[in-house]
Amino acid sequence: MKVSIIGATGYTGAELVKILLRHPRVEIETITSQSFAGKKISEVYPWLSTDLVCQSLDVERIVSFSSFIFLALPHGASMEVVGKLYLRSKRIVDLSADFRLDHPLVYEKWYGVAHKKKDLLKQAVYGLPELYREKIKGARLVANPGCYPTSTILSLAPLLKFDLIKEDSIIVDSKSGVTGAGRKLTLKTHFPEVNENLSAYQVGCHRHIPEIEQELAKLAQKEVKITFVPHLVPLNRGILSTCYAGLKDPPQPKDLVKAFEDFYREEPFVEILPQGCFPQVKDVVNSNRCQIGLMVDEKKRQVIVISTIDNLGKGASSQAVQNMNIMCGFEETMGLS
Amino acid sequence: MKVSIIGATGYTGAELVKILLRHPRVEIETITSQSFAGKKISEVYPWLSTDLVCQSLDVERIVSFSSFIFLALPHGASMEVVGKLYLRSKRIVDLSADFRLDHPLVYEKWYGVAHKKKDLLKQAVYGLPELYREKIKGARLVANPGCYPTSTILSLAPLLKFDLIKEDSIIVDSKSGVTGAGRKLTLKTHFPEVNENLSAYQVGCHRHIPEIEQELAKLAQKEVKITFVPHLVPLNRGILSTCYAGLKDPPQPKDLVKAFEDFYREEPFVEILPQGCFPQVKDVVNSNRCQIGLMVDEKKRQVIVISTIDNLGKGASSQAVQNMNIMCGFEETMGLS
Amino acid sequence: MKVSIIGATGYTGAELVKILLRHPRVEIETITSQSFAGKKISEVYPWLSTDLVCQSLDVERIVSFSSFIFLALPHGASMEVVGKLYLRSKRIVDLSADFRLDHPLVYEKWYGVAHKKKDLLKQAVYGLPELYREKIKGARLVANPGCYPTSTILSLAPLLKFDLIKEDSIIVDSKSGVTGAGRKLTLKTHFPEVNENLSAYQVGCHRHIPEIEQELAKLAQKEVKITFVPHLVPLNRGILSTCYAGLKDPPQPKDLVKAFEDFYREEPFVEILPQGCFPQVKDVVNSNRCQIGLMVDEKKRQVIVISTIDNLGKGASSQAVQNMNIMCGFEETMGLS
Amino acid sequence: MKVSIIGATGYTGAELVKILLRHPRVEIETITSQSFAGKKISEVYPWLSTDLVCQSLDVERIVSFSSFIFLALPHGASMEVVGKLYLRSKRIVDLSADFRLDHPLVYEKWYGVAHKKKDLLKQAVYGLPELYREKIKGARLVANPGCYPTSTILSLAPLLKFDLIKEDSIIVDSKSGVTGAGRKLTLKTHFPEVNENLSAYQVGCHRHIPEIEQELAKLAQKEVKITFVPHLVPLNRGILSTCYAGLKDPPQPKDLVKAFEDFYREEPFVEILPQGCFPQVKDVVNSNRCQIGLMVDEKKRQVIVISTIDNLGKGASSQAVQNMNIMCGFEETMGLS
Repeated sequence: MKVSIIGATGYTGAELVKILLRHPRVEIETITSQSFAGKKISEVYPWLSTDLVCQSLDVERIVSFSSFIFLALPHGASMEVVGKLYLRSKRIVDLSADFRLDHPLVYEKWYGVAHKKKDLLKQAVYGLPELYREKIKGARLVANPGCYPTSTILSLAPLLKFDLIKEDSIIVDSKSGVTGAGRKLTLKTHFPEVNENLSAYQVGCHRHIPEIEQELAKLAQKEVKITFVPHLVPLNRGILSTCYAGLKDPPQPKDLVKAFEDFYREEPFVEILPQGCFPQVKDVVNSNRCQIGLMVDEKKRQVIVISTIDNLGKGASSQAVQNMNIMCGFEETMGLS
Repeated sequence: MKVSIIGATGYTGAELVKILLRHPRVEIETITSQSFAGKKISEVYPWLSTDLVCQSLDVERIVSFSSFIFLALPHGASMEVVGKLYLRSKRIVDLSADFRLDHPLVYEKWYGVAHKKKDLLKQAVYGLPELYREKIKGARLVANPGCYPTSTILSLAPLLKFDLIKEDSIIVDSKSGVTGAGRKLTLKTHFPEVNENLSAYQVGCHRHIPEIEQELAKLAQKEVKITFVPHLVPLNRGILSTCYAGLKDPPQPKDLVKAFEDFYREEPFVEILPQGCFPQVKDVVNSNRCQIGLMVDEKKRQVIVISTIDNLGKGASSQAVQNMNIMCGFEETMGLS
Repeated sequence: MKVSIIGATGYTGAELVKILLRHPRVEIETITSQSFAGKKISEVYPWLSTDLVCQSLDVERIVSFSSFIFLALPHGASMEVVGKLYLRSKRIVDLSADFRLDHPLVYEKWYGVAHKKKDLLKQAVYGLPELYREKIKGARLVANPGCYPTSTILSLAPLLKFDLIKEDSIIVDSKSGVTGAGRKLTLKTHFPEVNENLSAYQVGCHRHIPEIEQELAKLAQKEVKITFVPHLVPLNRGILSTCYAGLKDPPQPKDLVKAFEDFYREEPFVEILPQGCFPQVKDVVNSNRCQIGLMVDEKKRQVIVISTIDNLGKGASSQAVQNMNIMCGFEETMGLS
Repeated sequence: MKVSIIGATGYTGAELVKILLRHPRVEIETITSQSFAGKKISEVYPWLSTDLVCQSLDVERIVSFSSFIFLALPHGASMEVVGKLYLRSKRIVDLSADFRLDHPLVYEKWYGVAHKKKDLLKQAVYGLPELYREKIKGARLVANPGCYPTSTILSLAPLLKFDLIKEDSIIVDSKSGVTGAGRKLTLKTHFPEVNENLSAYQVGCHRHIPEIEQELAKLAQKEVKITFVPHLVPLNRGILSTCYAGLKDPPQPKDLVKAFEDFYREEPFVEILPQGCFPQVKDVVNSNRCQIGLMVDEKKRQVIVISTIDNLGKGASSQAVQNMNIMCGFEETMGLS
């Protein structure tokens, strides 16, 4: 199958190229880059062993030669391109935020621009396979989840689905490596500023909040408002989210680990750790895995769930490929383990 | 004033030596080290510009020549030495955990050994100047607080003192640099294991919990049970604690920042950041400062308090010197800014 | 083909497991570990997705079931096991230093123990495919090169082979990530000691010197004595070697890059960068690649060659697999790109 | 004494502020910053405990109120300001490269702009106290050395002064932390690009080469051409230079360490390590110290000298204060230990 990647020279785009180059059923047809058009991507990322040359974006050319397209463009820039590709009957995974939120006004509020393809929002499927596998199978447009939402929703889904926690008690304290902030130069990501440093940012106002709350609400079948504080940590890759929630009716502690195991039993990329064990990011970096450990505090009637993913893996590019595998009827783990 | 440091070659001991060498009112008389007796401390820490030689511990010698003694021994090893020094009327700051907990059974439960100097527990003053300055002035034995407790108690003291938060709702998510784990070799602190990694540890069972709860209870004048999850982060120094708590009666958001400012108005080492600002560890590393930023979420009736300290500074050695300054009637900031 | 790995739980052993798990022609039969016998290797390295359980070393069992064996034991511990396996006609890649040096007395001098399998030294082929591919094809015992030797020899081979540099003028200034020091706990590799630090070590007396000089001498067809200074750098993986040598007769600068290109033209894992370009370690980490950039200083009649490898990749485990591929007639790049 | 700092918000400027704030004989009168005029410097660097507000550059104001001025401006921007200040009889330490090179044409060649104050070049004293203390005492304009030159010249001065090494054989392999590249945002210093990476840069063409060669030539009393390769290492602060040179007539190895000790006997900030010991950067970071270790290879008739400094300390700001102390007749170590 011939695929194209629009926006291939950001960190998520390059990671996509890396994964797709070794995917047995895929041939990369076109990669585009605004900044590096005309250059081999191996000039930008010499660790990529390929002769692929970055093109300017030419939608006509892409629709002629590719049947599957990934978009790794900044939010706002993605929706119009998606619109054109969709019209031409292509299958699409969009890694931007443009089609993740159901309601265009919510999008406008958090991203500061009006949504230009409201009609398509209804067609888009939220690309978290653990929740929406069946819908993804039939989808033509998949909105690939954000990194924090993937980490958070996987941590909390069984608890909300089984109605175990108080919906208004959820606190998510996330810690992310610096690639999560992208390749754009900022003082915050200048080496001497972030090395040997540690800080919270966008406390209570991060753009991933509405996306998380939207999906948690569907699981809970009622509105959910979370407290979410992301932190920047001096490492390249990885997210560790520590989630706290108050328990509803008394389930037994053992039940909770079992509930998670049951919920994710068939999932190839989610691992529930044994009672008393908690994950660390180095075990999931460079993979599509999510590891989850949890603990119940009976006295406080509280559960702590800790999960880890690679923000560029399950949090972005490898999850995008997992979605492609599902959409195309390939084995779901193909090229990912 | 002649001072001695017992246990000078761990990270906190060496930091004490560094600070005391430039203290204008102090002369270091003796430093002891079990592992490096007979060696200059500058052989162990070449960045220390001093000819001080490590001695084996000889209590008699120390009491003869020093009027003030710091102990930076492991917990359990400290209490007997403190006992001897106290008998000889010395003033003491003990950096171990041995005299921080009021109740010997609580100590025994969390530290696994029986307390051998129960009578002295009543004499010991908990060395957090922001709470106990007056008692410290008259104390002969000060139990220097742990790093996580310093970070946590300073974050929550105004809220509990002014009865603003629900005592059973407190969650503390702390992140610490690796010096917090000491100089002892462990796989967890082996460079390739902790570099590019991120993990929680001792989830819900860290030894600093009873110390934190004891002090918060005094502030609240009722029992307090917290949820506490420490994390290990790949940097050398610094603790950032993100604290979450449910609000009681509606104070206005502005009031809360002001409440913190009022509470700490006279404090030379605690800074309250303006509304909307949050601290980062690099601004407090190598200092005795604690920075605090906070935010109220009116809808969720919740407050988020984020604080930073240097775990070897305000979290250990520079706070010990602050205590000495208070005990000896020196200017409190002497040698610390 | 069934393979076994003896000493699977050090860093190079685990890397071997990772690579061999995805090798299309190989099945891992047995992995051994002294420290973790009875445990799944995924308990030691959770990022390894396998159910393989570590065994105690049982040579008989291994020879019964495996036709190819990797040894990743400490030097000194390897030679006797190799002896037994060799007697039983197995094909072997030994990652230790035990069979790299031609002369047992040189081995004894640098490694401090007598060599117990001197007869086998003659059978062992030095496993640097770029120099010894034909011999490796027919070998039963391959001594996998050290990380610094791989980096250095590949940097200098064309210069010595073509008789371009003065043999007594060679200076190699190498910088290595911390996994090069292994998984054994040492103060030098304790996180707070090596993080934010930089140091030279074993200046002029590193054990890889005789190995490098032996191979350079064969290329030069005369004795070669190098100056070699390794440095420890706060990153996990990667070696960058900066090599300096005086030029003999004036070749044109362009010729030198071309000489390298010619020398390595058929090599799948060595890349010569264009004139004026120099490599960085992040482009070779997690790969079997070696990148080389060079520059001639005409006035000083000197050449500077800079090369990069992953110390656990081309410097150890992936090179071991490259050797296996050659020995077994598999495609040389199989499982490695 | 009232001092001003022109260009206070780069890394070297902020370091100057930090040092001068605790200098007992100095009061900071004015600090200037183009980018942050009107803001407190503690808003830019919250770890600076001061209420100083950044001003736009107003030379008249500065000359009215300050008797001593530091300039930490980019090269090219410094010379005209220096010119005005010099005319007004101020004493000046210029941290830029503008007055380090004796010959304006050399400056123009390497820095790409014509020198506008050629007459002042003759007045400027090169601010390496270990070589030029007497001249610095009487100077009104001191050109503070670059970080690599400080590291390199101190490593080689005794060898050249005592005529011990071949002038055409010198190789300097330097490794620097990332603050050496300044606060300007570049892809090369973007955290995910430099973290877990290692690279050489400006191989053989770094701007510090003519400065080093100029000073080494004066020591050798003949032309010196060095080979110089700087490397970027993922840490914040510190330079380690590994210097290689061929020996002239046979001095005894012990003599060489002694020669260094003799040469630097009176120097408060240069330490010669015992035979067989080599320095590491963490021992000099946050100090004005330079540590030097060396080794002779008798067989190769070669000496290896390894030195460490803090690039923002002895390599820039604390050396600038050392120069001020000398110029003003203060104790040379004042405020620096």
